[in-house]
Amino acid sequence: MLTMQDALLALQRYWTDRGCMIMQPFNTEVGAGTMNPATILRVLGPEPWHVAYVEPSVRPDDSRYGENPNRLQTHTQFQVILKPDPGDPVEVYLGSLEALGIDIRAHDVRFVEDNWAAPALGAWGLGWEVWLDGLEITQFTYFQQAGGKPVEPVSVEITYGIERILMALQNVGHFKDIAYSDGISYGEVFGQSEYEMSRYYLDDADVATNQELFEAYATEARRMLDARLPVPAHNYVLKCSHTFNVLDSRGAISTTERARAFARMRGLAREVSALWAERREELGYPLGVAAPPAPAVRGELPAVSGPATVLFEIGVEELPPHEVTQQVAAVRVAVTDKLAATRLAHGEIRVEGTPRRLAVLIDAVADTEPDAQRTLRGPKVAAAFDADGNPTKAAAGFARGRGVEVADLERIDVDGVEHVGVTVTDTGRPAAEVLSDLFASVVAELRADKNMRWRDEGLSFTRPVRWLTALYGETPIPVAVSSLSAGRTTRIRRTAPTPVIDVPAAQSYVDTLAGHGIVLAAADRRAQIVRRAQQLAAEVGGTIDVEGEAALIDEVTNLVEEPNPLLGNFDPKYLDLPSEILTTVMRKHQRYLPVRAADGTLLPHFVAVANGPIDVDAVRAGNEAVLRARYEDAAFFWRADLAVAPADMKGGLDKLTFADKLGSMADRAERIAATATDLADLVGLTGGTAATVRRAGELAKFDLASSMVIELSSLAGTMAREYARRAGEPDTVAAALYEMELPRGSSALPTTVGGAVLALADRFDLLTGLSAVGEKATGSSDPFGLRRAAVGVVSILRAFPQLSAITLTAGLRAAAAHAPVQVADEVLAELHDFLVKRYAQQLADAGHDHRHVEAVLPLADAPAHADATLAEVGKLAGDEGFEALAQALGRVRRIVPADTAAGHDAAALVEPAEIALAEATAEVTEALPANPGLAGFVPVATALTGPINTFFDDVLVMAKEPELRAARLGLLATIRDLAAPILDWSAL
Amino acid sequence: MLTMQDALLALQRYWTDRGCMIMQPFNTEVGAGTMNPATILRVLGPEPWHVAYVEPSVRPDDSRYGENPNRLQTHTQFQVILKPDPGDPVEVYLGSLEALGIDIRAHDVRFVEDNWAAPALGAWGLGWEVWLDGLEITQFTYFQQAGGKPVEPVSVEITYGIERILMALQNVGHFKDIAYSDGISYGEVFGQSEYEMSRYYLDDADVATNQELFEAYATEARRMLDARLPVPAHNYVLKCSHTFNVLDSRGAISTTERARAFARMRGLAREVSALWAERREELGYPLGVAAPPAPAVRGELPAVSGPATVLFEIGVEELPPHEVTQQVAAVRVAVTDKLAATRLAHGEIRVEGTPRRLAVLIDAVADTEPDAQRTLRGPKVAAAFDADGNPTKAAAGFARGRGVEVADLERIDVDGVEHVGVTVTDTGRPAAEVLSDLFASVVAELRADKNMRWRDEGLSFTRPVRWLTALYGETPIPVAVSSLSAGRTTRIRRTAPTPVIDVPAAQSYVDTLAGHGIVLAAADRRAQIVRRAQQLAAEVGGTIDVEGEAALIDEVTNLVEEPNPLLGNFDPKYLDLPSEILTTVMRKHQRYLPVRAADGTLLPHFVAVANGPIDVDAVRAGNEAVLRARYEDAAFFWRADLAVAPADMKGGLDKLTFADKLGSMADRAERIAATATDLADLVGLTGGTAATVRRAGELAKFDLASSMVIELSSLAGTMAREYARRAGEPDTVAAALYEMELPRGSSALPTTVGGAVLALADRFDLLTGLSAVGEKATGSSDPFGLRRAAVGVVSILRAFPQLSAITLTAGLRAAAAHAPVQVADEVLAELHDFLVKRYAQQLADAGHDHRHVEAVLPLADAPAHADATLAEVGKLAGDEGFEALAQALGRVRRIVPADTAAGHDAAALVEPAEIALAEATAEVTEALPANPGLAGFVPVATALTGPINTFFDDVLVMAKEPELRAARLGLLATIRDLAAPILDWSAL
Repeated sequence: MLTMQDALLALQRYWTDRGCMIMQPFNTEVGAGTMNPATILRVLGPEPWHVAYVEPSVRPDDSRYGENPNRLQTHTQFQVILKPDPGDPVEVYLGSLEALGIDIRAHDVRFVEDNWAAPALGAWGLGWEVWLDGLEITQFTYFQQAGGKPVEPVSVEITYGIERILMALQNVGHFKDIAYSDGISYGEVFGQSEYEMSRYYLDDADVATNQELFEAYATEARRMLDARLPVPAHNYVLKCSHTFNVLDSRGAISTTERARAFARMRGLAREVSALWAERREELGYPLGVAAPPAPAVRGELPAVSGPATVLFEIGVEELPPHEVTQQVAAVRVAVTDKLAATRLAHGEIRVEGTPRRLAVLIDAVADTEPDAQRTLRGPKVAAAFDADGNPTKAAAGFARGRGVEVADLERIDVDGVEHVGVTVTDTGRPAAEVLSDLFASVVAELRADKNMRWRDEGLSFTRPVRWLTALYGETPIPVAVSSLSAGRTTRIRRTAPTPVIDVPAAQSYVDTLAGHGIVLAAADRRAQIVRRAQQLAAEVGGTIDVEGEAALIDEVTNLVEEPNPLLGNFDPKYLDLPSEILTTVMRKHQRYLPVRAADGTLLPHFVAVANGPIDVDAVRAGNEAVLRARYEDAAFFWRADLAVAPADMKGGLDKLTFADKLGSMADRAERIAATATDLADLVGLTGGTAATVRRAGELAKFDLASSMVIELSSLAGTMAREYARRAGEPDTVAAALYEMELPRGSSALPTTVGGAVLALADRFDLLTGLSAVGEKATGSSDPFGLRRAAVGVVSILRAFPQLSAITLTAGLRAAAAHAPVQVADEVLAELHDFLVKRYAQQLADAGHDHRHVEAVLPLADAPAHADATLAEVGKLAGDEGFEALAQALGRVRRIVPADTAAGHDAAALVEPAEIALAEATAEVTEALPANPGLAGFVPVATALTGPINTFFDDVLVMAKEPELRAARLGLLATIRDLAAPILDWSAL
Repeated sequence: MLTMQDALLALQRYWTDRGCMIMQPFNTEVGAGTMNPATILRVLGPEPWHVAYVEPSVRPDDSRYGENPNRLQTHTQFQVILKPDPGDPVEVYLGSLEALGIDIRAHDVRFVEDNWAAPALGAWGLGWEVWLDGLEITQFTYFQQAGGKPVEPVSVEITYGIERILMALQNVGHFKDIAYSDGISYGEVFGQSEYEMSRYYLDDADVATNQELFEAYATEARRMLDARLPVPAHNYVLKCSHTFNVLDSRGAISTTERARAFARMRGLAREVSALWAERREELGYPLGVAAPPAPAVRGELPAVSGPATVLFEIGVEELPPHEVTQQVAAVRVAVTDKLAATRLAHGEIRVEGTPRRLAVLIDAVADTEPDAQRTLRGPKVAAAFDADGNPTKAAAGFARGRGVEVADLERIDVDGVEHVGVTVTDTGRPAAEVLSDLFASVVAELRADKNMRWRDEGLSFTRPVRWLTALYGETPIPVAVSSLSAGRTTRIRRTAPTPVIDVPAAQSYVDTLAGHGIVLAAADRRAQIVRRAQQLAAEVGGTIDVEGEAALIDEVTNLVEEPNPLLGNFDPKYLDLPSEILTTVMRKHQRYLPVRAADGTLLPHFVAVANGPIDVDAVRAGNEAVLRARYEDAAFFWRADLAVAPADMKGGLDKLTFADKLGSMADRAERIAATATDLADLVGLTGGTAATVRRAGELAKFDLASSMVIELSSLAGTMAREYARRAGEPDTVAAALYEMELPRGSSALPTTVGGAVLALADRFDLLTGLSAVGEKATGSSDPFGLRRAAVGVVSILRAFPQLSAITLTAGLRAAAAHAPVQVADEVLAELHDFLVKRYAQQLADAGHDHRHVEAVLPLADAPAHADATLAEVGKLAGDEGFEALAQALGRVRRIVPADTAAGHDAAALVEPAEIALAEATAEVTEALPANPGLAGFVPVATALTGPINTFFDDVLVMAKEPELRAARLGLLATIRDLAAPILDWSAL
């Protein structure tokens, strides 16, 4: 058996043999190998750098006293940096797995999108988690930026999680059981340290001392930057970072402190990077400068005769699943448009994609463009010939420029004016030339949601493009872009005996791939997955909810080229856990399809979709082990949590700091309860619902202190419901606790009034509290989720017209009354505005007429009311009478200055039209019910349309006589005020 | 070529193959691999622990900006711990050198005594520096104590200095030129970091911040101890230690701060160790308990017939050179005494030793002890027989007890009293039995100056005993002690084809060894070294100063078994350096014999004494490279220092803190100058000497700020002289600067008055200042060298009678007048006492009669005067007149109470004897010259002997009449006071 130290030595040997230097772990605590200067600084600048090293990585908040089988405060990373990207890093990486004794032909090795960002380091990259039979064993990243600076050339970063790999290889269920060396287990060597350091990080570290240390480190880092010494500066940034993590795991970091500390560390890290880069340049780049790859040179274009099928394949490293779909569409558009801009005849264009290729197949492409004629316009005839009819210099020049004799000039008509002109013939280009240029531009223009750079400095895409295949029938078409040249070879799975194969002809491309197991069309792969998954589910008397799991199936479809669904099982005992836990883990963490009985209940099985031909039993066993570990964790948390009554669990909120000046999460929960009670009073809730609000308020947020939610934060609310139910709370209370966390992202809204009131209280508290202490959502930065909270408030209020007494204003004021800090009126006004903007955005996103939206915004303090009005406007829109009334009232609104008060001296009015208007106004006022709403207002107010129009036709509002003018404006102001509560008529 | 990373991997592989775990470097800064908990904690307790790891070791004060070819702030150690000692760690270690590609048969690998102690860790061990052709490449230690606790079982600690080894293997002269990996040099990888971290440690680290960090770390360590968490506690002790080193390299640690910080760290480290040991026990020793080796069982004793030569060889790992000599003597005494206590007949006993063996050869040992008869005494005859002549119960009991019949009892005379008795025969034991027991007890009782323990838990010696050889002629004698059994095999050099060989017979033992190159007798080795060294020196026209280098030759003689002197050369350009530098390096660091021309000047050659047959050219080249590197360093410092004028250099003393409350070294130098001036005035120095004292005082200690002295502190004073001379200072000033550092240990005293005055001022300042701030020399602890300083004061004053005006009192008062703190009178009194004690000790050590010493101690305030008096006493001792005088004066002294004043009322005297004595006293007083000294006093005072004796014979001093008694006592007090300044007569 390979021991852990064997594994580390094997990796060192493997990477040394591939030209890597071996470095030592860093001699101050780092959270990851990335933070070692051998990565985070060395990736900067043009110097080549191939390095590998072990890095014991300290994550204080992963401390579990050594009890959790998979979680350690110090875990061992093996880190590799390849700079520049060697062009085949994935293949080289797979070799390292073989060096560890992993049979990569038997196992399911997958590259699952995982983009990495370390905001505190100003660093990010794109890449994957590498899965071995469902277990994440490696982080593989193309480093794009570090210290806020783009890295050029790009580095490949490969980070192995050694304990996980060894647990899988040795088939042990707890890290302590890993054979570290011959006869000595991991637990025997590191167990005590795991326990004691966990104690330090979780219980015993002195907060005040660590705060001092943080300050001291940050100050020293600052000083070293000023002294232009990036190496010690970086050292102190690392110490800052570790100390921050210690404070965090001690629960001593509030949200605002976190934001501030991150900003400070980020600032320092960026300066360190910039200074390092400068210093390396000053030192003349001691390690030299990495040469970029040579640009590809296009070969001679072949003569072809057609028509023939054309293939263009863009070979990539594993695309993110959603990008497979998007890029297929984008390439289809690009090829279609670009072809349309040529004269090359062609048949159907088909574009398909898998994680590793985007393929264009074009039927019946002609071998040449037809020739085409074009008439070129010269000077006007009048200017082309002098009075004697002789050609002028202008004509001569034009002819000469076009290579013809003056005599050959024609006369052409351009918009009725006669010009001289000449007709030229554009010779059709050969297909090879057309396609070569076209495909090159398609590749050069590839763009995705997130783009990266790699070895090919000329290209940018979501993942590296590694090969191009272009065929016209059986003939390769040379395509050269950046350093890539197209050929006739394609690549099949990397573990195939010959991973690179020839494509004999474009027309047989799909079959060629199929012959190696690859299903090109996503639709085919999806169908195959669904069919096989259902078969597998049926084998155990179950079924897959294809509808319900559509998004997951779509994702899985684009994670494989050769779908190989397999059935896995888990111990039925885990079915005692709430199904949300089980499915969350299956879907979100593992991309497994849950298997359900006919009645929808979960069965103890799952379908995992492997890629390619694998040893099914081995891969099943691996996936089952991963799921077992995850469920075992969950079961452990579940049991631990159930042992604590919700009210007691809530005591744990004391330790969770919410935000600077806003106290703990317990304080926040108390405010939510108080605000919810006020809101309930506001809408006059009584009886059961009021009691539900009160009780749920008392327990608000208690599950945030549960082990399960600490581990799986997306289960907040869900676990509250489960734990509350099991603790004997009424279902309504349990439901309200669940619903107070809704909406979550774009998920469902609360469905009960109690839940809605609590959810509103939660969000009003968040908004007022954080705004009062100066937090704002700006641009793309919204660390506290203020925007999401605002959207939630608006969405709930829109869904609950019965809660219309809870206006935005009332809700904010209720929360402000309980805030632990003074909330200024301007803050409330700004928040109100912020909420209204979210509402307007929702309406705009829903496609409402922007004029209608504008018209109802004044009503947005009660969004449900504004919604109702908007619906009315929608119905009335186009109705002549309404339109006329709206126009008339809009005209009134526009002409009356805002500061004009309603009311007039009736005696001052002189003209009949104005007297009539005054009378009509009085009548309408009389006739309107209280709070008429638009529906009640329009039938009555329509009576004003005529008088208003007549008034404007006959009367000059701005009379010279002040009194008269005042009376007329006052009359109009009366009408304005009458109409104003209904909507903003001027916007229509 | 083996790159550095190849070397690290090779060592990992080698030690893994030998059962070691591989660990990672520690993730906080450590000064050495020893401090990693994988060593300092794991060596504690009974758990086995075999581990190897790389440890980048941070030594802030080795920072040199990357400029020094051999000195780095972070150097790479490779650390191995073998617990328990496998029994052959040296042999296993040599294998690791072969794994590094070192041909240990061609090179000179030596084990040179180097005992290791880390007071801050409460840890020590005995072992060696391992030299490869004169280059220290490894520290090899048997760990004896850690955290103040004995370690059991003992661990073997092997620490490789990787950069040094690689520089030698790759034959490069600067660490930056080491090939770190293929095509990448050490400097390219680490150069910037070396520079920048040096900047931090030497120039830029913020002192206040680091002081805060030290406090914070120490506090956190304390808290973790209280929480019973040794792992985080140790972590913080390490951080303390590193921060202390940072402060130290910034010159921010005074002597007292150092002592305090060390005490604190030591206290914490000890508690950590104790707690770790406790916790491991509580955890039930997860790694098990190492079994001690089985005790040896003695085989059957052979029958031998003799007489024959007997051999007993005690095979050891390399003894410290002085122990070879001491142990040969000790074993000779032990064997001689023990044999004498037997009846075994034998001839000459010869004991010889080399670093690896102590051998006893005994000529003509009989094969059996002769039988012997013994008479046992019983009761007195009177008690043995009753009145009837029948035996009493007593007689019967005696007979029964001795196994004889009453009738067999004899009558024996004991001191004239007749007893009954019985004669028994002691049968002689066979030689094998006698020798087996005897030799076992010799081994068990081996003791050295410093003793250690190793795998053989029953033994204790300066280095491990690894084998025993015992032969009676050709017959092996079984000897069993602890786990060792004697046999007929011995060991020759470890690199021989068969390193273990049979000894055919005791009588041919010396030849057997000689046949394998080993010269058993130290005298022979020494002669061989001297002869060959002179030959080699002669080859280059030089000679070795055999007299002058006697101590070094003695040392070298016991560093080798097979002396192989070889001639090395160095670049003559280094001869421009002062010869003290060159010889200090040769002797002290390298154990090379300097080669001199006939006129005594150095030649650019040296003789190194290798061990065994080696590749002379390779070993010469290696030794030359080491010397070149050391001389290059020295030359660099020399040049750097010469560029700075002494007065400017002295500015650097500001940065060297002397001691808490006593300011910087610059302050101290200023005080020395002021005190020296005062002392010069005191003795009335004028003219040139006074000017010398003044000028040398101005420059006092300036060389402490020189690079050379910072590197080679033993050259303090020497460099001052050299640099002052070259800066144009007068020779007298240069000499005084040199002499003010004398005596150094047991070295020479100043020879000039100026030098003596400065040296005194230096020491008086040290003593008064440090004593005033509470420092004391206690027991074996004298961190500030107070005892050495006191000895210096006394020695100088004794050597310079012309400076007798500088009494101890005057000197201390002069220094106290310039002290920056108040020096209390009690402090001065204590110091005076301390100085006098040192003087008394010197006299006692020199073998003076303790009564004479006592007698002159009252004069010790001026030690030269006391010396002169002591010499007189010595001369006079035995002289009848003097003895009588002394006795008389002593009697006077004893009878007069100390508080009795001199003088009497002459009228009160009545007896003739007292009147005569009064008269004699007056006459003698009259006749005595001023300050007569003992020599002037005795001839005159002898006139008092008779009158005093008569007085005591005739007169009762304690007369009843008070007046009379007062007069008599007053008269005697007059005599007492007359005699008192001469010496303490009562002591004689």
